[in-house]
Amino acid sequence: MTYLSFVFEVSDGIATIRLNDPDRLNALTFETYAELERVFAVMANDSAVKVVVLTGNGKGFCSGGSVHEIIAKLIEMTSEEQHRFTRQTCDVVKHMRTLKKPIIAAVNGIAAGAGAVLALASDIRLLSERAKFAFLFTKVGLSGADMGACYLLPRIIGQGRATELLFTGETMDAQECFRIGLANRVVEHDKLLNEAYGLARELKSGPLTALGITKDALEREADMDLVHALEVEAMEQARCMQSADFAEGYRAFVEKRPAKFNQS
Amino acid sequence: MTYLSFVFEVSDGIATIRLNDPDRLNALTFETYAELERVFAVMANDSAVKVVVLTGNGKGFCSGGSVHEIIAKLIEMTSEEQHRFTRQTCDVVKHMRTLKKPIIAAVNGIAAGAGAVLALASDIRLLSERAKFAFLFTKVGLSGADMGACYLLPRIIGQGRATELLFTGETMDAQECFRIGLANRVVEHDKLLNEAYGLARELKSGPLTALGITKDALEREADMDLVHALEVEAMEQARCMQSADFAEGYRAFVEKRPAKFNQS
Amino acid sequence: MTYLSFVFEVSDGIATIRLNDPDRLNALTFETYAELERVFAVMANDSAVKVVVLTGNGKGFCSGGSVHEIIAKLIEMTSEEQHRFTRQTCDVVKHMRTLKKPIIAAVNGIAAGAGAVLALASDIRLLSERAKFAFLFTKVGLSGADMGACYLLPRIIGQGRATELLFTGETMDAQECFRIGLANRVVEHDKLLNEAYGLARELKSGPLTALGITKDALEREADMDLVHALEVEAMEQARCMQSADFAEGYRAFVEKRPAKFNQS
Repeated sequence: MTYLSFVFEVSDGIATIRLNDPDRLNALTFETYAELERVFAVMANDSAVKVVVLTGNGKGFCSGGSVHEIIAKLIEMTSEEQHRFTRQTCDVVKHMRTLKKPIIAAVNGIAAGAGAVLALASDIRLLSERAKFAFLFTKVGLSGADMGACYLLPRIIGQGRATELLFTGETMDAQECFRIGLANRVVEHDKLLNEAYGLARELKSGPLTALGITKDALEREADMDLVHALEVEAMEQARCMQSADFAEGYRAFVEKRPAKFNQS
Repeated sequence: MTYLSFVFEVSDGIATIRLNDPDRLNALTFETYAELERVFAVMANDSAVKVVVLTGNGKGFCSGGSVHEIIAKLIEMTSEEQHRFTRQTCDVVKHMRTLKKPIIAAVNGIAAGAGAVLALASDIRLLSERAKFAFLFTKVGLSGADMGACYLLPRIIGQGRATELLFTGETMDAQECFRIGLANRVVEHDKLLNEAYGLARELKSGPLTALGITKDALEREADMDLVHALEVEAMEQARCMQSADFAEGYRAFVEKRPAKFNQS
Repeated sequence: MTYLSFVFEVSDGIATIRLNDPDRLNALTFETYAELERVFAVMANDSAVKVVVLTGNGKGFCSGGSVHEIIAKLIEMTSEEQHRFTRQTCDVVKHMRTLKKPIIAAVNGIAAGAGAVLALASDIRLLSERAKFAFLFTKVGLSGADMGACYLLPRIIGQGRATELLFTGETMDAQECFRIGLANRVVEHDKLLNEAYGLARELKSGPLTALGITKDALEREADMDLVHALEVEAMEQARCMQSADFAEGYRAFVEKRPAKFNQS
């Protein structure tokens, strides 16, 4: 499977999606959206992919929908065509959140508009000290209800801060992102990819089925009551106890050696 | 429409509600609750109001229900009368959260009890460095389940911190409010209103329909699963793409000038 | 009622559960789980217990399920037996969250795996500066969906940080726990129990019925929409207004003396 609008590489279990239009800070085109929707759907069934790293080439992570390639054309569209497009952008997020594999956003520069939401829809956000976030939808006359931002952002940073960011579209630097919990880590710019691939390798060596269950539980239980959440967890964890990874985890502990998961 | 228990002014699209009993730190009376319920309902249909600023006159923001005017009388009431009152206080919050216009709380001093919840039910909280918060319901023998505080507070600052504040009723200063995400910004006392009206003007110049959709989506999606949230956002954002504001946002960008929203 | 796997004491309204296998950092056995399930259920109906303090004897708070006593045996079990066990661990959490009395975790050292979740399921977490948290389930091949961790943790610290901690199982020190809202307070090691019992006494002197309603509302409204949450609060607060504690709160205020709640 090849993709034209970004670099897609799989090496040793780690897939990289590298947005690749550095002159436009990796602005998204209709093709990028279509290919992002496809690549995240395809990876669900690609056993060669264990962990995903999403990043950008050049100075930016992703500046959002291209003004000339997307916004100019959206304005000419019928309401139905626009809705088909927004559904597709939401499907990218749905595929990301339902992919039972960790997605690490390595945010190397500005993450704006849809670019900021791609980072939100990732599981863990590592930021270069040069990274910035701007949910700038209102700046172009749109609502903050874009690609699930009104669902995802408050669950990460709380309703108060999310409201201000989505209302104003203001730009926030990496340290502020870290302070409020939008960034998991902020690292020196030159060390960002090292950090991201280090984490990717760490996760890849973890019990992958159990990691997928963890991600799924986090997502499903976001809208569930405690009693049902406990039923889900009792069931899922019992299932993990049947796994070879659990037996290996125990043996490794007893033998005082690192565990080797995912052998079966 | 005139109000007796607070100052209500509308100037250039910005409504101000200024609680106005400074000698009692703007304690609420039955009349204040009734008028707050009314003013937030009325503003929903008042096209002259685009953005709301809620603040207090004098040293306090709002010290909550007046001990002599409210608590003394509640104790004499029947259970039905008390329930009618608590429903009314909750209706104030419902009207605030469902008003599709931004509400900025400019917290100029102590926000206690119901006063703290009025700030919670606002969209953005700007605090004077002299502001303090105290959810002091348990201090007078009541529960923290007042006017939606057990719903609103954990969604802003997380369940752990919310529990402690609602259990103990302890007072928290402005910097701590900022640290935990209860305050969006803390500013010098003398600059609070400048900051609040600056933000109000900024929001008023934004795409108001889209801001209303953003607020509505944030509120509705707080209790929704991801799949339905994405459906809501795809629909709402497509609707925004039909708006004159979106076309204007695009033209302004291309012409490298500030956008002029809300012209139609 | 006596318990073999921990110390259980009730003194002046405050129950202490002190895990008591210091040589194993208070690792949990099947007996501990069974007794924890029982003690939290029993305390619901024990009028001598007003507030609970959960802590550990020695250097650790609780290192989670014992490798030799639990994990070794789980591996030999049938799927049904494993599910019976995970349901029991979840029932401990259910009893903790539905107990209408405050639970304070005094985290005196490492809180790992199930030990970390016992702290999560408490209402307020006070940490010694020596405390550490590690949700290390993936380290032994299990998922983070253990005892409700995927439900509880994001509601306390947000989805982004929760995901990283549950994916990696990394260890976090007390100051970082405080920064992100997992710890309510961090105190000098030698002052931890003083702080915990000081808070326990403060809560015990509060209006206990109203505190129970507060806890219940916080838990139930975590999965409720605003309109229903407001109905719940209007009803519950009106109920509190019928209480002797509310009348006492008013009289104490007027008479400028501390309130004496819970007299009837």
